[in-house]
Amino acid sequence: MLIVMHSAARSEQIDAVVAALKNSGLNAELLPGSERTAIGVMGNKAFVDEDRLLTMSGVKEIIHVTKPYKLVSREFFPEDTIVHVKGVQFGGTAKPVHIAGPCAVESREQLFSIAKGVKESGADMLRGGAFKPRSSPYSFQGLGEEGIALLREVADELQMPFVSEILSIEDLELFEHNADMIQIGARNMHNFDLLQRVADLGKPILLKRGMSATVEEFLLAAEYILNRGNKQVVLCERGIRTFEQSTRNILDLNSLALIRLESHLPIIADPSHSAGRYDLVAPLAKAAIAAGAHGLIVEVHNKPSKALSDGKQSLDLERYEELMKEYRNTGKQEVGSEARAKKTGMKPETSQAVFSSS
Amino acid sequence: MLIVMHSAARSEQIDAVVAALKNSGLNAELLPGSERTAIGVMGNKAFVDEDRLLTMSGVKEIIHVTKPYKLVSREFFPEDTIVHVKGVQFGGTAKPVHIAGPCAVESREQLFSIAKGVKESGADMLRGGAFKPRSSPYSFQGLGEEGIALLREVADELQMPFVSEILSIEDLELFEHNADMIQIGARNMHNFDLLQRVADLGKPILLKRGMSATVEEFLLAAEYILNRGNKQVVLCERGIRTFEQSTRNILDLNSLALIRLESHLPIIADPSHSAGRYDLVAPLAKAAIAAGAHGLIVEVHNKPSKALSDGKQSLDLERYEELMKEYRNTGKQEVGSEARAKKTGMKPETSQAVFSSS
Amino acid sequence: MLIVMHSAARSEQIDAVVAALKNSGLNAELLPGSERTAIGVMGNKAFVDEDRLLTMSGVKEIIHVTKPYKLVSREFFPEDTIVHVKGVQFGGTAKPVHIAGPCAVESREQLFSIAKGVKESGADMLRGGAFKPRSSPYSFQGLGEEGIALLREVADELQMPFVSEILSIEDLELFEHNADMIQIGARNMHNFDLLQRVADLGKPILLKRGMSATVEEFLLAAEYILNRGNKQVVLCERGIRTFEQSTRNILDLNSLALIRLESHLPIIADPSHSAGRYDLVAPLAKAAIAAGAHGLIVEVHNKPSKALSDGKQSLDLERYEELMKEYRNTGKQEVGSEARAKKTGMKPETSQAVFSSS
Amino acid sequence: MLIVMHSAARSEQIDAVVAALKNSGLNAELLPGSERTAIGVMGNKAFVDEDRLLTMSGVKEIIHVTKPYKLVSREFFPEDTIVHVKGVQFGGTAKPVHIAGPCAVESREQLFSIAKGVKESGADMLRGGAFKPRSSPYSFQGLGEEGIALLREVADELQMPFVSEILSIEDLELFEHNADMIQIGARNMHNFDLLQRVADLGKPILLKRGMSATVEEFLLAAEYILNRGNKQVVLCERGIRTFEQSTRNILDLNSLALIRLESHLPIIADPSHSAGRYDLVAPLAKAAIAAGAHGLIVEVHNKPSKALSDGKQSLDLERYEELMKEYRNTGKQEVGSEARAKKTGMKPETSQAVFSSS
Repeated sequence: MLIVMHSAARSEQIDAVVAALKNSGLNAELLPGSERTAIGVMGNKAFVDEDRLLTMSGVKEIIHVTKPYKLVSREFFPEDTIVHVKGVQFGGTAKPVHIAGPCAVESREQLFSIAKGVKESGADMLRGGAFKPRSSPYSFQGLGEEGIALLREVADELQMPFVSEILSIEDLELFEHNADMIQIGARNMHNFDLLQRVADLGKPILLKRGMSATVEEFLLAAEYILNRGNKQVVLCERGIRTFEQSTRNILDLNSLALIRLESHLPIIADPSHSAGRYDLVAPLAKAAIAAGAHGLIVEVHNKPSKALSDGKQSLDLERYEELMKEYRNTGKQEVGSEARAKKTGMKPETSQAVFSSS
Repeated sequence: MLIVMHSAARSEQIDAVVAALKNSGLNAELLPGSERTAIGVMGNKAFVDEDRLLTMSGVKEIIHVTKPYKLVSREFFPEDTIVHVKGVQFGGTAKPVHIAGPCAVESREQLFSIAKGVKESGADMLRGGAFKPRSSPYSFQGLGEEGIALLREVADELQMPFVSEILSIEDLELFEHNADMIQIGARNMHNFDLLQRVADLGKPILLKRGMSATVEEFLLAAEYILNRGNKQVVLCERGIRTFEQSTRNILDLNSLALIRLESHLPIIADPSHSAGRYDLVAPLAKAAIAAGAHGLIVEVHNKPSKALSDGKQSLDLERYEELMKEYRNTGKQEVGSEARAKKTGMKPETSQAVFSSS
Repeated sequence: MLIVMHSAARSEQIDAVVAALKNSGLNAELLPGSERTAIGVMGNKAFVDEDRLLTMSGVKEIIHVTKPYKLVSREFFPEDTIVHVKGVQFGGTAKPVHIAGPCAVESREQLFSIAKGVKESGADMLRGGAFKPRSSPYSFQGLGEEGIALLREVADELQMPFVSEILSIEDLELFEHNADMIQIGARNMHNFDLLQRVADLGKPILLKRGMSATVEEFLLAAEYILNRGNKQVVLCERGIRTFEQSTRNILDLNSLALIRLESHLPIIADPSHSAGRYDLVAPLAKAAIAAGAHGLIVEVHNKPSKALSDGKQSLDLERYEELMKEYRNTGKQEVGSEARAKKTGMKPETSQAVFSSS
Repeated sequence: MLIVMHSAARSEQIDAVVAALKNSGLNAELLPGSERTAIGVMGNKAFVDEDRLLTMSGVKEIIHVTKPYKLVSREFFPEDTIVHVKGVQFGGTAKPVHIAGPCAVESREQLFSIAKGVKESGADMLRGGAFKPRSSPYSFQGLGEEGIALLREVADELQMPFVSEILSIEDLELFEHNADMIQIGARNMHNFDLLQRVADLGKPILLKRGMSATVEEFLLAAEYILNRGNKQVVLCERGIRTFEQSTRNILDLNSLALIRLESHLPIIADPSHSAGRYDLVAPLAKAAIAAGAHGLIVEVHNKPSKALSDGKQSLDLERYEELMKEYRNTGKQEVGSEARAKKTGMKPETSQAVFSSS
């Protein structure tokens, strides 16, 4: 921690700050500059009464050196975390995971037809919303418990695990007994109550980034989960809200690439919600994999024009098959491995497939 | 609803869209332009299968004409809604309401001393956090149930109602029996489960705008509450997240002024969280009142340097007294009334006090 | 300057950084923390080869303590700067300056009628665009040289100085000989060539904030001007671009209030461009004055529905008169003075009128 | 154009609007909806006095159907534009173009060493700044005319064309006689004077997106150039400014993919300025190519730690060679072609190489 003094701070003001620090059992080191003096603080910052310092006369600001997250940080756990969902592996040297399915579960027939289709195209996992967070109370809110039952049934029949979003702690038991992986959506990334209660179930969690959450806040939300003893967290970049509104949200691959350096947790991308229109899904999907994503979660519908929600951005089965065909015809590549190795001193073994035809 | 066709759309594509609309029982009107044709749709849009239209060949985009909210809109209810909290009135011709108190309740002594101080300065209501949503799991999370008990006790003793934030539906009963007004915080504005459950308690609600919520999303969140039959909603503008980070959040008085035109619900401002530093609270408080806010919610601490959270942005009692002194020495003013009258055809009687000395 | 080492940095890496600093003639102070070591650097940072430091092994990041601007900073010049435009005073204890006029000069008749009207309502200065920066090449681009001639003529006849925007260094001479104050618009805030060339004319400058410029960038743009020896700069907050697009730009009064603390330069506000619609201009104008603005620049048109640009956001003469009437019926108020006095140690004498009726 | 009436608009208000439209020679079509009436306007909107309409009583808003740009639009020119710079081809079926070089030209030795290095790695063109726009007047501003001379000399010797940024119309002649391609930087995207004057030189232009420019504004800036008769424009996505500041700017691949659909102009990406740190350049470079970029412009320095500007984000020659090695070991791929074909009715032949090893 660094305490920056006002340029006109008098020496007795500086002395008072140093004395206050020493009273708290901390060491202070004066750093006189050409224009102002700063005071370096050594010791465990947990014991610093920072707000009091800020109101002492002559103090201009306090600069933090240490990041506020720990358990999610690669500095604390340099090795990649692998998240396991019934045989599907996220992270580390595993090949990218492909999750696909409808935005909302609408019927058994719809779900089965989509699930079968995406599985044949190579998808590893099924997605489907049973509880839908909608901006308007007048929009379709999902089938609820029935939707989860359909997901369980279809997932079992096709032998592919599924992920679905939870909205309320009242559904904890339902998800605990039925879901293979539980999604915390963008709107609930800051719902710390839900985060912790879901964490306690001990199941794998797919944590989506809030639409205006910083990388630090995103990692701190994951920290809430790890802090409850659950390390089975997959992060998901799904686009951020910016001034630019010609597409729905801007897929933030800068942050995805940064998180691969900063955190040991796997991170996947959701090109569908970011694009907001189906004809941008493929380029963004490829871009995410190229930037180092550990997987993709893609909305697919058998009849997008009949979808009860988000049809506009869903791929149909044929387009999903084309996307996956590009993926299957792919070699191997070291993605971002060189830079990370230099940075962390680790030798990454990750071999990551990308979209390209031979 | 307006369906915009691609400039190269052929007449049979246009005909197909018109036919599809008529099949759905809607009327379609061709609007040929110099470059492209648009199709106006008449009738209740609830029956339009919009996603199917979007995927029909030749269709470029669909433009909505109607706002998605209804109950909160001044178009549906032109008269100002008045919200009553034990004798305190928000909205309409009532004078601005002053809510003040600590960010977090820390102890009976702290709370009582602050509450007594702000009451003497003219505050109408007490605020205090018992459950605190914190970005980091390692930050102080509030006193919980004990905090609510202290608020109840102090509020009764000083005869001023209090508002406090709820984070979880598990605390519904606690708030139902103890709180005078229940706050839904910025991080939970999109937590529709919580919104509806709190709405059902029938108590007055203070709904804060999410830090990146649009005006439309903010009003739709309120629509969730009104849609449950609870009209006692006070909105609160508390600053939005932007690229500019030299202050914490930018207080969005454009949206506050716009919401006064669009909605009949009262709206107050929170200059403290927006400023993020105590020396900007007073100018922003005055600006909010001048822009037409129906009240202010201000963080005040007896010893800001000892505050367990947000001390940096809290006013001390002396500074709050100075702010309120400016307010008390004030005349009357019609704020924004002329424009609103022109706009809505109503004659507003609102007389609103502003900060200024005589 | 503070060099933060990686948590796993070895002592020989730390030693190498310290040695590199000492080779550059700087003093380095070790600040071992609980998780990592930081190195405080003392001396004039101008001589630090920062980029080399960043690539030395073990270095995580470099944190700057000193703000990059100097001449515009209140730390360097604590006294308020007063800008004089032919008898009109901006800043310090002067009362707020009211600038008004059409977005674009369209004809002598239009300009004269508006100028006369706003003067009668109490405006101190005239504004009018002769060269208009338009997003589209197909929009009206202004009358050019003829517009400046009309402004000069009308300003002389009515004895009120005028400000107009310059777009190109080819017009330097035209503005030098005719304009009373030269505006650098939002789109040119980063056009450093233009900034410096206009600065050299020695005339008063109205510098608008870029629509996504940070406070630091805004002050650095002014620093370019002061660095050429011209201190006659009035800043103008005109709204920033954010995710929220229900109004055109969000008027950033947080930054306005912050700049009043950080800089000695006067700062005014433009509620018209921020609002983007006439019925929000009055509330934002009042809010800006309440937050401490040294003046307002407002678009007024005699027949807004006939305006060749920006008619939607222009007040007509009647509405401007109403706004100014509120202003004239006003007492005196110390705006933001207490906090600033505490902060800077100066006793501000500023007495600032606000909008309120007695 | 669609005129939306207020829900309470009376029929005589609607009639007045229709009459006003007919007076202007336009056809109006009533579109009565369940809640309000809209009026469709047919004919050339150039003749609509829109601002007058907006102020007519009962009118709520005007919705535009037509995009404001034409010449840059694929709707007007469906075929991909190919831009030629001395044998290097941007766009269409050409393989991605690799531009590399230092942020700023510092010396002949530095420039030659970098240019030779990147050419050996496979770069097609050289970049180098001679005139640098810097936020602070105290930062290195470039070698100016000498820098251009060095670029010319090195480019000729190595037989690779170069691109460099122009800041002022005073340097038009210098660039006309020496540059192979002229860059308009992000800060000058809105400097319409410069845009048009550079356009008139008839040389190929690299137009960077402003850091907070919308897709529409970006395309309109290009429209300014095409409107002067110069179609040799390559667009460049270089990252946008958002709330997220853990990396410098967010590379907006959504917009890049969208622009590939909307416009016939080639578009490349600048991963260096977006990343702001060298270890994110490679993942973003790969992502941009995967998303459909027609090329990359990358900052490379022989000794990044000695760079006079932007050293932090520059790759050294070794890292650039690694990046290009990945690229060379690549197959062919149809990028985004399927969607585009569906959308525009064209059969794209584009075959685009991506980063991947075989």
